[in-house]
Amino acid sequence: MSARMLAWAYLSQVALGPCAPLVELVASVGPEEAARAVREAALPEVLRTRTEARRALDTAERDLERLDRLGGRLITPDDEEWPAWKLLGFEGVDARRDRDAAVPLALWAIGGGTLVEVTERAVAVVGTRAASGYGEHVTARFVEDLCGAGWTVVSGAAYGIDGVAHRAALAAGAPTVAVLACGVDRAYPAGHARMLRDIADRGLVVSEYSPGVAPARHRFLARNRLVAGLSDAVLVVEAGARSGARNTAAWSGRLGRPVLAVPGPVTSAASVGCHRMIRDGDAQLVARAEDVMAAAGPITPGESEAGPARRLDSLSAVELSVYEALPTTRAIGVQELSEQSGQPLAAVRGALPTLELEGLVGRDETGWSRRR
Amino acid sequence: MSARMLAWAYLSQVALGPCAPLVELVASVGPEEAARAVREAALPEVLRTRTEARRALDTAERDLERLDRLGGRLITPDDEEWPAWKLLGFEGVDARRDRDAAVPLALWAIGGGTLVEVTERAVAVVGTRAASGYGEHVTARFVEDLCGAGWTVVSGAAYGIDGVAHRAALAAGAPTVAVLACGVDRAYPAGHARMLRDIADRGLVVSEYSPGVAPARHRFLARNRLVAGLSDAVLVVEAGARSGARNTAAWSGRLGRPVLAVPGPVTSAASVGCHRMIRDGDAQLVARAEDVMAAAGPITPGESEAGPARRLDSLSAVELSVYEALPTTRAIGVQELSEQSGQPLAAVRGALPTLELEGLVGRDETGWSRRR
Repeated sequence: MSARMLAWAYLSQVALGPCAPLVELVASVGPEEAARAVREAALPEVLRTRTEARRALDTAERDLERLDRLGGRLITPDDEEWPAWKLLGFEGVDARRDRDAAVPLALWAIGGGTLVEVTERAVAVVGTRAASGYGEHVTARFVEDLCGAGWTVVSGAAYGIDGVAHRAALAAGAPTVAVLACGVDRAYPAGHARMLRDIADRGLVVSEYSPGVAPARHRFLARNRLVAGLSDAVLVVEAGARSGARNTAAWSGRLGRPVLAVPGPVTSAASVGCHRMIRDGDAQLVARAEDVMAAAGPITPGESEAGPARRLDSLSAVELSVYEALPTTRAIGVQELSEQSGQPLAAVRGALPTLELEGLVGRDETGWSRRR
Repeated sequence: MSARMLAWAYLSQVALGPCAPLVELVASVGPEEAARAVREAALPEVLRTRTEARRALDTAERDLERLDRLGGRLITPDDEEWPAWKLLGFEGVDARRDRDAAVPLALWAIGGGTLVEVTERAVAVVGTRAASGYGEHVTARFVEDLCGAGWTVVSGAAYGIDGVAHRAALAAGAPTVAVLACGVDRAYPAGHARMLRDIADRGLVVSEYSPGVAPARHRFLARNRLVAGLSDAVLVVEAGARSGARNTAAWSGRLGRPVLAVPGPVTSAASVGCHRMIRDGDAQLVARAEDVMAAAGPITPGESEAGPARRLDSLSAVELSVYEALPTTRAIGVQELSEQSGQPLAAVRGALPTLELEGLVGRDETGWSRRR
């Protein structure tokens, strides 16, 4: 158990959910230095306040051991499987309006899937707990078609649409990702304990919350952002007038990703939320899985129309320093790139997908290099 | 039976459907002079071609007698009940693109309702002949609510959604308007003969086609334009992939009026057309009758924000000459206004609603006057 890993675990259990200033601190000084600063309260006012309640409570070692016994792991920005690409979306969200619109510090996970791989082409399939027979039928049909075409289904493991979506993915022999609003060691809802074990067998059960953390209302909202954040689009199959699924959909909209809703009978209370979203222009109507796939992707990298100079202009300071540290004649690994650029590992990992998308950098088995 | 009325009937049976150049000729020289010109083929090339096949066939007297025996009448732009206001919409349609986007010459009608009154606040309710139980249920519910709020339902008397819409209106004790693609003396479809008699009892059965004319495919399309033209909005309850209801909806769109569609189960073939229209942005999703009423109106006259000078600028030459012929100190009738302005009666009747909408003219029991 490395000191760095213990620092990540400590920071995660202190943050206990989205905390943009802490993510920024870690990105600039690294997890160990950030953990030391939190412990000693050597922090700017905003972070001191946010970490005050839990900074003395260091359960990092116990949490990591507990997860290890369950065959799980803590996925951090240090890891190859960290889905930096997907989570980049949160950087475009106005954090002043959405206080909790943060990249997660780290993700606790149980399961045989590799996070960055299983979420490479992913659709969140969500909906009301009070699903109708129609909703269950339609969910199963959409999921079967999505999985058949190689898409992963991400959801929240709740009763109703979520559960049907996960089960249909498992039945299709496809990996699926359940994002929990509690520790991954807890089966919530209890009636889905068996299903969660099945999900872990082939896909992943992930959470921003350390082992043992209980579900709570605000954690469901924070969890919804990760369901959207790990997906290329959110599909709402059924939603009542006040369904939590609409919250997940709103996150997808804020991330600039498609929000899709399935219509249903206007006589069904379970479709009221979907119809309202379509009517208000907050969601696009989809009637078949093909509609979902057409809206959700594929994203084709390197199709930027701007020239290289123009593209460099649009880079952040961090991205530019990472770009300039890259050699054109050979490929280097992220560790060396971090040293050359003076940027922390997490920042390097965060910058590379943008640079790749812009067609500025390339990657092979030995690492990254500058293009042109 | 006046010579003028015989001229209208003759022109209608010669045109046998939409014929924009003939409508223009009548508007400029009046029906009797137009009828003489048609009989003698003293016409511009385009009109000579269009009227050639039927100009020798004068069934006007017989048609009017036949209609009279059925208690019907021929409604023309001369009549107070002519819905000039509603039909004005066709003037905004590009006739080069839509050859048949013409105001009807006249309308043959049977029924106790007054056309301009029953269509004052009207919604076309249309849909597939192959309606599902869901579609029938939803149609009845929407129509009941619309009629309860004082709206008239216009439809095409076909099997399926059309028939359910008319019947629900009758059950609600409300007038309803059936627009046929054949003569109003013919019951089409035959299975709806009883329903058509019930509609005539309280509302109106109308057609652009003279008595005896048989239904034909192109007449259904021309009929659809009148269903849309007599309504403030078109509501499609169910439509298959190739439903004629989508043609009616398209007319509403061309007229600049709302196109509304009810969603349904994505598993139902009868909702495919509705979903496609919503998805493509060709229709707005409606889930309740309240949504329909909110979209369809009410239109509040005199709310134009532009000043009088600005408003005069936007008038057509005909509208301006009618406006300028109006006195400010007293009200005059349309006959006098026609003489004063030098515009034919139909043109005067067509211009007045626009002028009223712009708040430029007012009307009392004795006639029309200029405002300000």
